Amino acid sequence: MASPTAGLLTELPSFNTLTALSSGLRSANISRLFEQNENRVREFTLHAAGLTLDFSKHLLDRTSHAALVQLGSEADLQGKAAALFAGDPLNSTENRPALHTLLRATQAGAAQLEAKFEEVSAVRQSMKKWADKLYGQQHRGHSGELITDVVNIGIGGSDLGPRLVTDALKPFHGPTRCHYVANVDPHDLADTLAQLQPASTLFIICSKSFNTEETLSNALAARRWMLDGGADASELNKHFLATTTNLSAAQEFGIAPENCLPLWDWVGGRYSVWSAVGLSCAIAVGWQNFAEFLAGAEAMDHHFADAEESVNMPMTMSLLEVWYCNFLGNSNHVVLPYAQHLRLLPDFLQQLTMESNGKRVSEAGQALDYDTGPVLWGSAGTMGQHSFHQLLHQGTRYSPADFIAPLTTHLGESEQHRMLVANCFAQSRTLMVGRSALDAKKSLLERGLTEAEAARLAPHLAMPGNRPSSTITMESLTPQTLGALIALYEHRTFCSGQLWGINPFDQWGVELGKEIGREVLSQMAVTKVYDRAVLDPSTAQLLARWQESNLE
Amino acid sequence: MASPTAGLLTELPSFNTLTALSSGLRSANISRLFEQNENRVREFTLHAAGLTLDFSKHLLDRTSHAALVQLGSEADLQGKAAALFAGDPLNSTENRPALHTLLRATQAGAAQLEAKFEEVSAVRQSMKKWADKLYGQQHRGHSGELITDVVNIGIGGSDLGPRLVTDALKPFHGPTRCHYVANVDPHDLADTLAQLQPASTLFIICSKSFNTEETLSNALAARRWMLDGGADASELNKHFLATTTNLSAAQEFGIAPENCLPLWDWVGGRYSVWSAVGLSCAIAVGWQNFAEFLAGAEAMDHHFADAEESVNMPMTMSLLEVWYCNFLGNSNHVVLPYAQHLRLLPDFLQQLTMESNGKRVSEAGQALDYDTGPVLWGSAGTMGQHSFHQLLHQGTRYSPADFIAPLTTHLGESEQHRMLVANCFAQSRTLMVGRSALDAKKSLLERGLTEAEAARLAPHLAMPGNRPSSTITMESLTPQTLGALIALYEHRTFCSGQLWGINPFDQWGVELGKEIGREVLSQMAVTKVYDRAVLDPSTAQLLARWQESNLE
Repeated sequence: MASPTAGLLTELPSFNTLTALSSGLRSANISRLFEQNENRVREFTLHAAGLTLDFSKHLLDRTSHAALVQLGSEADLQGKAAALFAGDPLNSTENRPALHTLLRATQAGAAQLEAKFEEVSAVRQSMKKWADKLYGQQHRGHSGELITDVVNIGIGGSDLGPRLVTDALKPFHGPTRCHYVANVDPHDLADTLAQLQPASTLFIICSKSFNTEETLSNALAARRWMLDGGADASELNKHFLATTTNLSAAQEFGIAPENCLPLWDWVGGRYSVWSAVGLSCAIAVGWQNFAEFLAGAEAMDHHFADAEESVNMPMTMSLLEVWYCNFLGNSNHVVLPYAQHLRLLPDFLQQLTMESNGKRVSEAGQALDYDTGPVLWGSAGTMGQHSFHQLLHQGTRYSPADFIAPLTTHLGESEQHRMLVANCFAQSRTLMVGRSALDAKKSLLERGLTEAEAARLAPHLAMPGNRPSSTITMESLTPQTLGALIALYEHRTFCSGQLWGINPFDQWGVELGKEIGREVLSQMAVTKVYDRAVLDPSTAQLLARWQESNLE
Repeated sequence: MASPTAGLLTELPSFNTLTALSSGLRSANISRLFEQNENRVREFTLHAAGLTLDFSKHLLDRTSHAALVQLGSEADLQGKAAALFAGDPLNSTENRPALHTLLRATQAGAAQLEAKFEEVSAVRQSMKKWADKLYGQQHRGHSGELITDVVNIGIGGSDLGPRLVTDALKPFHGPTRCHYVANVDPHDLADTLAQLQPASTLFIICSKSFNTEETLSNALAARRWMLDGGADASELNKHFLATTTNLSAAQEFGIAPENCLPLWDWVGGRYSVWSAVGLSCAIAVGWQNFAEFLAGAEAMDHHFADAEESVNMPMTMSLLEVWYCNFLGNSNHVVLPYAQHLRLLPDFLQQLTMESNGKRVSEAGQALDYDTGPVLWGSAGTMGQHSFHQLLHQGTRYSPADFIAPLTTHLGESEQHRMLVANCFAQSRTLMVGRSALDAKKSLLERGLTEAEAARLAPHLAMPGNRPSSTITMESLTPQTLGALIALYEHRTFCSGQLWGINPFDQWGVELGKEIGREVLSQMAVTKVYDRAVLDPSTAQLLARWQESNLE
């Protein structure tokens, strides 16, 4: 079994090889790479769990690809994957395993996981019970009315995952509507409740500790709304579930233990949609669809665990991330799902990747002298084409892109979906082939411009091209392929963390912000004489402005 | 009057001064800069049009600030602003003025703009008429039912602006609901129409040319839905408005000229929310509120036109953008509105900034040897704190940030809003002050960890700090302050374009994508024998996969 501690990227033997290769690839022409290797598309296409990855439009040739695969092998990505599935304490700073894969497994896989797997199975049964009842609209509130609306109150991992999955699987929704409230801004809850009736609404309070400040304050406001709406305190149980490990805090709030679905400390928020955190999704789409969502992820897990580095889809995507970040000097990554129902994917991936790999010290606590996780951003295509694609095509820097396209729609084949897919394929092609000023000039002359005008405008129409992208396709966006897609990015994120030698499962960087938040809050209430040990002059001035607006 | 052609950034005399100064500022400590200048907060705070900008938490001292202001002066930002307002053809590649400021002006301002101002005023009257009727629910559909729902169909600038404004002004909404459909993915329209009834729905087709492919295909689908829903072709006029200059195409579609609100070629899509493109907003919030939205922008226009460089808010923000991009080597910018109702602001700003300044040639068509527009991204606080803030605090690179905070809420002062604002101020403070490993260790020991455990964990809790941000505050988020905020970013974007010597008003980079989109579409239909002159092997393979899924 592999040691759970990752080494440093720069200490891997192939690091220098790749550094040397990268200078050649920086000036390579992707279109020409196709000419040099007629098998390029086939060699640079992978299949797994219903997904196909075409990574042939990259600044990568056979040699550099082989060296990257070798790097992955030196970092023992296969061993790390095995350690992940075996429940080794890969989350080393917190001395815990990261067992999100067990949450979607149909068997324990290893003897030491049997006990945990039984707990998982029990919670799945409990989720199924609640999902059947609420998806089927057989649960009644305090007045006897049927529950028609479910509001998930959580933030971060207790929000982004279920929110994405529920939105993405809209064509699979049953009659019960699921809503999501996360922000401590009181407008978030107020806007949601404005459309709802207390008698037919049920809340799921999603907080491992039952102590997340934003979530608790929204939960308390929801509780007031329910009591003001006619429920008795003794009836709160008909309107509140909790996904939490803190049974006593939930009970104090008014939620009985039988209404609490447990979590475990071996699953991080951003990897938790497969657990009871996903209950709202199961309510939205029904248990059968949720089970298929788990199955899709499990299929990707098997691929990740079993496939060799060179044909391993998550490993390949991770090696590409490191290639651009640490060898070609890039610092951001754009994700462009050509599917309206994947519009929330970039938000979800921002947490998954940037909370996991936005780290600057190694697992051993040593400051790194190389870059880790890039900024991830994006939006649904075709929206971005009428917005930021200008910069993708003609900005001074490039952003490696992931295009994602379901090949069919749930509405049947149509001219509109054909346009959607055509645009997706055309954008990656355009990024690669670009357009020369000469060609632009020719096209302008054909449109009837004068020689002088065409010569003046051509440089503005020219596009450098040679901008890299991957394209991920799937037959259609179903619970199964969605599960596989999310698991794919989870494992990609994990592999990158291993290559960078960091711990992708902790998030200490958010801690101090919480502490200082409490300090600022404590200074807000009563005085204008700030403690200069607590507040810098800028923050003190901001606070004074808030007080002028609120306390006078 | 200033020449409309911008020079190159590197040719400005202060460029070298700033390059020299930047090496010192790279290693400066922001907290210490406060100690060195006790007036720093006052000196680095600006007020304009109801907004306050605190830019004291930046890697900037008096000397470098003065040099930046000098750079702005050398680029003649004040002259450029005057040329903008005067209607000079600043959009040089298209030989047009960019007169979005006229759309919110209460007077022409210059003799040569009188005729245009009269046209604007006439359209405003027409917008008011429609807004009054639809906000007041006094317009009836084909069956005599009142129109209760308005669907704006547009994309890019015909979508992101009105979508943002409508969402941001939710507390000002009247009874009529406004919806937005943009994506050519048929699910976008289908999901929206699923909640609506043809008899009580009105569509606004928002397309300058009435020829934008996504918009037109959605408009045709909406038309089918309306006809299938019982309307006669002769009654479409009761259910469709258009914002367009192409009256004949609209008429052919079934929209009479009196239902068309004109646009002009001197306003770009991303600057057009102030025009008839904003009609859906005016319907959502009523004319009076929309007029205040315009007034807020006009107030910012006056500030931008009149204030000296050193106290000019848009110019200051632009100079900071260039400072980080071209002197301190940064390549992205994060926007963090601490207001749920500004959650769409980052999407809007992505188009505004990246479509405007994602350019690689100068106005004269010369390839630039310095960077232009950075990647812009972000999300509503406090959501990001439980997601990507980990990377902001502890990633290996930093992202200059704009925090935005309304100081009061429309729901009255509350513990929740207090937490929201406290978190906003705490995040910018935490980014700046960071935490030493020593301090982290102390805190861990206080929590009862052993010396060894505390020593092991401390490096993971340490944060480098010294990460820069601006904070923009406003009394509350109203039509007026929202207008000022959007205009602030518009002018910041314009100034950066001038400093970089590029044209922020064209978008040639999206052209080729459209052409290739049509080529790919043409190859989709019938054959598996692709034209290799048209398709590279990767795109051909992707297309073959699509055909396997759809044509067999």
